[in-house]
Amino acid sequence: MKKNEKSNHSGKGVLKIIPLGGLGEVGANMMLYEYDDQILVVDTGMMFPENDMLGIDYIIPDITYLIQRRNKVKGIIITHGHEDHTGAIRHVLEEIQAPIYATPLTRGLLEVKLAKNGLASRVHLETINAGDSRKIGPFKVDFFHVCHSIPDGVGLGIETPAGLIVHTGDYKFDHTPVDNWPTDYAKLAEFQRRGVLALLADSTNAERAGWTPSERVVDDALDKVFREAKGRIIIASFASLISRMQQVGNAALKHQRKLAFAGTSMIDNAKIARKLGYLNLPDDLIVSLEEANNMRASDVTVMCTGSQGEPTSILGKISTGTHRLLDVKAGDTIVLSSHPIPGNEENVYRTINRLFERGANVIYEAIAPVHVSGHASQEEMKLLMHLTQPQFFIPIHGELRQLHQHALLAQQIGIPEKNIAVILNGQSVVFSDGKMKLGERVPAAYVYVDGAGVGDVSKDVMHDREVLSEEGVMVINLIMDKFTGKPSREPEIISRGFIAYRDAEDLMAGLRTRVVETATRANGNIQKDIEQAVSNYLYKETQRRPMIFVNVVKN
Amino acid sequence: MKKNEKSNHSGKGVLKIIPLGGLGEVGANMMLYEYDDQILVVDTGMMFPENDMLGIDYIIPDITYLIQRRNKVKGIIITHGHEDHTGAIRHVLEEIQAPIYATPLTRGLLEVKLAKNGLASRVHLETINAGDSRKIGPFKVDFFHVCHSIPDGVGLGIETPAGLIVHTGDYKFDHTPVDNWPTDYAKLAEFQRRGVLALLADSTNAERAGWTPSERVVDDALDKVFREAKGRIIIASFASLISRMQQVGNAALKHQRKLAFAGTSMIDNAKIARKLGYLNLPDDLIVSLEEANNMRASDVTVMCTGSQGEPTSILGKISTGTHRLLDVKAGDTIVLSSHPIPGNEENVYRTINRLFERGANVIYEAIAPVHVSGHASQEEMKLLMHLTQPQFFIPIHGELRQLHQHALLAQQIGIPEKNIAVILNGQSVVFSDGKMKLGERVPAAYVYVDGAGVGDVSKDVMHDREVLSEEGVMVINLIMDKFTGKPSREPEIISRGFIAYRDAEDLMAGLRTRVVETATRANGNIQKDIEQAVSNYLYKETQRRPMIFVNVVKN
Repeated sequence: MKKNEKSNHSGKGVLKIIPLGGLGEVGANMMLYEYDDQILVVDTGMMFPENDMLGIDYIIPDITYLIQRRNKVKGIIITHGHEDHTGAIRHVLEEIQAPIYATPLTRGLLEVKLAKNGLASRVHLETINAGDSRKIGPFKVDFFHVCHSIPDGVGLGIETPAGLIVHTGDYKFDHTPVDNWPTDYAKLAEFQRRGVLALLADSTNAERAGWTPSERVVDDALDKVFREAKGRIIIASFASLISRMQQVGNAALKHQRKLAFAGTSMIDNAKIARKLGYLNLPDDLIVSLEEANNMRASDVTVMCTGSQGEPTSILGKISTGTHRLLDVKAGDTIVLSSHPIPGNEENVYRTINRLFERGANVIYEAIAPVHVSGHASQEEMKLLMHLTQPQFFIPIHGELRQLHQHALLAQQIGIPEKNIAVILNGQSVVFSDGKMKLGERVPAAYVYVDGAGVGDVSKDVMHDREVLSEEGVMVINLIMDKFTGKPSREPEIISRGFIAYRDAEDLMAGLRTRVVETATRANGNIQKDIEQAVSNYLYKETQRRPMIFVNVVKN
Repeated sequence: MKKNEKSNHSGKGVLKIIPLGGLGEVGANMMLYEYDDQILVVDTGMMFPENDMLGIDYIIPDITYLIQRRNKVKGIIITHGHEDHTGAIRHVLEEIQAPIYATPLTRGLLEVKLAKNGLASRVHLETINAGDSRKIGPFKVDFFHVCHSIPDGVGLGIETPAGLIVHTGDYKFDHTPVDNWPTDYAKLAEFQRRGVLALLADSTNAERAGWTPSERVVDDALDKVFREAKGRIIIASFASLISRMQQVGNAALKHQRKLAFAGTSMIDNAKIARKLGYLNLPDDLIVSLEEANNMRASDVTVMCTGSQGEPTSILGKISTGTHRLLDVKAGDTIVLSSHPIPGNEENVYRTINRLFERGANVIYEAIAPVHVSGHASQEEMKLLMHLTQPQFFIPIHGELRQLHQHALLAQQIGIPEKNIAVILNGQSVVFSDGKMKLGERVPAAYVYVDGAGVGDVSKDVMHDREVLSEEGVMVINLIMDKFTGKPSREPEIISRGFIAYRDAEDLMAGLRTRVVETATRANGNIQKDIEQAVSNYLYKETQRRPMIFVNVVKN
């Protein structure tokens, strides 16, 4: 890359950047910018648990660092309305009082979310628009428009006395976006003229060569679906994919079908997006699900949630025949307009298989371009670097493998390796005198949310769940006669998740014998002795080790 | 497709085809051919459990139908040495006595497997070679060579009085295979001349357009890795991917490195493949892992298992720094020469992230062509149909979505929809008088293997494991004074997998109070009353419902 001659990067003071989420694993984006003891928070994301995080509902960033400095937080910017950027807002607001800056659609979606948690009245929301500038503490923030799979997303130019930081949020360079509003190239070029100290950019697709296809590609695929479908068309997607709603609505209009939304979050989001003018669908296009059920199949389009194969979602229920209103019939065409999030593949494929089994024709990403990514691919990433010409580069929003690939791209562009920081959550980066160095590490572990509990599922608890999930549990209750020192009746043995009783009569008989023998013989810790004897016997017979609870009462 | 004029499909008698595995889900291939009360078994596969099959080691087909007809089984053919075609052999041989037909390499791999289970002496193995014909009961079987990701695979032409069946096994049409032995086109053409009643073909890649790349593509990718690597090269792949071992060996030879194998199954398979001449590596190329550890890093190649990110595999251990001999250092290059099996993505990506974190350079399918599929893609599938010109078509080996796509391809080729049977495991198909119709359904559920138990993990047991895995367990032991009717001491409360104790002091105190109150007040079923009170209290406080065991002793 050509050396940036215009900029003067020997900025004043010390700027600290602290990632609390989104680096090294998927999702849960959260970044702190700290200058002169004042903090700007960018995004407050959550992430979904991996398959081996048993019983966990979702995961949020560790905000210990922020809580310790709660009075220093000057503002919270939410770049766009996706869960991996907004999902932890409730947990953050329980601890931090600071104004939230968001564009109209992002604000609308936040309000729906906050109202559900009874927080709407406690929060100070500031509407900003792409193109606006705001002073937030020592930071002057320029909001610029970016294309993504939800409308009204913004990236940030954060001017600090130490230098100008460009923070992209999620972006792609779609030249023909559904809302006809491309990413703001001019603003990026303006930043370059001002001199960019550091670029922090979305790494999601750093492994993907080329250029992410335009959302328009989906139009053609949908048109083909609508042309060929004889019966109902049911399209599953994310509740936040407003542009996909627009595309489906357009196709329905063109092919003279009506459109019903199904799923609370999808209905809510469509409503707020229509109200705010981000989703343009005529009133007479929209029908309720009940109305749709009374129409001819060839007049109906349904848009619903469940494109990740979640068993409790609308599509999940349709696939198992357990949805109250939607029953799949032969002749129905079902479209999964989505890409399986890693870890969801099995659920997605199982849902597709079940829908085929019920007689539907199923169309999904593997066989037709009914979905495109909302994130930039390698050529777009390189374009962004050329447009902004940063002195330093920090890849954000990705697993470590993606951050690494993004860093390799930056090196190809000519950013020296020493000017690139591949960091994990909690590793702060400090800019002073135009230099970058690694700073302190702050707490940034996963915080598990399970039911009403936040962070009360420890590693030990998780490990116990794993043992229980694989081997089950056995409870043994024994009453000993305190005079004879022998069991005064047969031990009570209950197991769950261990073995089907019908197959285990001999095993249980052998087990009872061993419990009685061990209890009679024991002279030390009778409880421990029985536990050991039972564990050994079960392992010998079944090669399984259930969790064993022994309770002995002397009577 | 041109009407097949040469064939006479009005065959004699009744041929029944019964799939016991491999249809509708991944893996566990097993197919029965039954004519005149005599049965030929093709493959005896296993499959790996999905993420929500808690505690299950692997899954085998239900062979109830076969057990009921054990004296009618005339032979078992194993088409190639992969687990999804061989893995249930031990369970089948425990019930069925019949000769096993396999090519030399497949036989060698089976012998290793059977020896581990002490079954080697009890089994009658017959070596066959591609090109051979054998009479097995009423069936005349022509074995023909197919390319796949393991050498010495065969497909079958099964001549029956009812007509000729072509059963592909796993195949691809690689024109430049690593062992220079392409699929036997001439034999397929010969079948066509004889007239093919039905084709049963591998559907794995039915969603993939085009032609699967040749294994040779991997040579170039490996050459680049070897050219650029400064330190050690560690390549993870499947233990059965003999051709990949050959390719890595060739690259090591060319770049003057030594090669060490790590992992019992990989060492065993390399040994048998070298002994039988399917893996040509000079003796002085091979070193032990201990020797490799004493060599210069730039002289070392290691090939190991763990390309699916299995935590207990060699690569899994390397990634967590827990392998006894292999310690990843900065400068090491690690290659995952594999494709994540659906459901393994999280483990694979996590392993890659950890290796990056340890300083290695990691190369994997997403960023370089270090792996190709062993299964035919759409154009190959269509070529196979044109080569054999079958009257009927049954897609096999795939999830339902893949079987459906394969059936669509067959329709494109000109096979009428009514001549195509998309069926699930257990659904028999009957051929008589040159006609195909669906026959009886036979038992074909999943049989779960967990430790030493086969089929003793029922749906109930699995459901209990799910509850335990998500909410944990709580055991409450209470002693009541039989005179006062009140608890004679504090209840003992133990929980596992429910909540971290450090966060739960108040909760536990509240719980004890409720247990004592309920016990004192109870006049019906005290145990049930306590269970209910505890469950309600915990749900109110935590929104979780652990499995609760209450034991009350009156003293």
